[in-house]
Amino acid sequence: MPHPVAFWFTAGSTYTYLSVQRLEADARAAGVEFSLHPFNLGLLFREAGYWPFPEGAAKTAYMWHDIERQAARMGLSPRLPAPYPAPDVPLANRIAMVMNEDGLGMAWLKASYREWFENGHAPGSDEAVSRSLAAVGADETAVLARANAPETVSAFDAATIEARRRGIFGAPSFVVGDELFWGDDRLDQALALARQG
Amino acid sequence: MPHPVAFWFTAGSTYTYLSVQRLEADARAAGVEFSLHPFNLGLLFREAGYWPFPEGAAKTAYMWHDIERQAARMGLSPRLPAPYPAPDVPLANRIAMVMNEDGLGMAWLKASYREWFENGHAPGSDEAVSRSLAAVGADETAVLARANAPETVSAFDAATIEARRRGIFGAPSFVVGDELFWGDDRLDQALALARQG
Repeated sequence: MPHPVAFWFTAGSTYTYLSVQRLEADARAAGVEFSLHPFNLGLLFREAGYWPFPEGAAKTAYMWHDIERQAARMGLSPRLPAPYPAPDVPLANRIAMVMNEDGLGMAWLKASYREWFENGHAPGSDEAVSRSLAAVGADETAVLARANAPETVSAFDAATIEARRRGIFGAPSFVVGDELFWGDDRLDQALALARQG
Repeated sequence: MPHPVAFWFTAGSTYTYLSVQRLEADARAAGVEFSLHPFNLGLLFREAGYWPFPEGAAKTAYMWHDIERQAARMGLSPRLPAPYPAPDVPLANRIAMVMNEDGLGMAWLKASYREWFENGHAPGSDEAVSRSLAAVGADETAVLARANAPETVSAFDAATIEARRRGIFGAPSFVVGDELFWGDDRLDQALALARQG
């Protein structure tokens, strides 16, 4: 019997865009279930004294070019570079938690990346929040109240503690049993391991 | 007509091990020529205020596990983690330049990674220098004299300036025309583009 894949991400991760575009279809093709786990990667970066894509760095320029190239291979043409870093990624991640409770996690994530990578509205911005929630038919006022409620903040903190415990240090990450795979480039291997069961 | 692939690396890079194991065979299969370009990646890291694999970091533990996993897929079983970081990587890279002049670049690189990842002798250490040069039948005293000569030091500096100019920020990197690919995970795409010509 196949194992599930736990998809650990932050809505503010650039490379996570690629996995969001293909995870549902690829998991279905592999006969594998997946679950969504937003966490506070920015906090783990700060703890590590590290920021992966500083403004003006050669690595940052490459990151946008590489995502564009990988997206083109998938038939996608996002408008890059997108605004980066995003203004309020923790809020976007708590919205992801709430939407996931309602069974709309992937639908909202896709809408969030559509706003960010196609329409230029970064996660956590007023425009991105309004438009991504409207896109999935959610009530913005109600979702924001839940996203800012203490129990959601606590659950988000707990998810980040769990990510740290599992040795997660970047996004997207995929966990199958105790095996960790980092990066969209490892999604196929994660699904293959999950399929083995 | 196929384009050549320029392989930019430092002998002190961990992931470069994977590319060194397969570059010759994969390039041959693709009908593509490649050239070797050692450069001072440590200097570029210092300029960027960044070190990719600090001791004790979750990312560093993952790096060794991921290399082991990728190596296993290639039928290899290196003894990891290997000593890291290596003591005198610039010397190892200047030796790579000298050996490359003599047509022994890849043979020496393979020997260097054998010492590091199988026998535990890090690049630039006395043992690694002696044993890797002996493995390819080179005269250690003569090679060291050339590796430490001003013209080699200058050529190594020039290679690093060229790497910076090309936007290279990590290793292994592969350049086809003006297109940059970073990481062993992009070697196949680099070879495919080169083959198109």
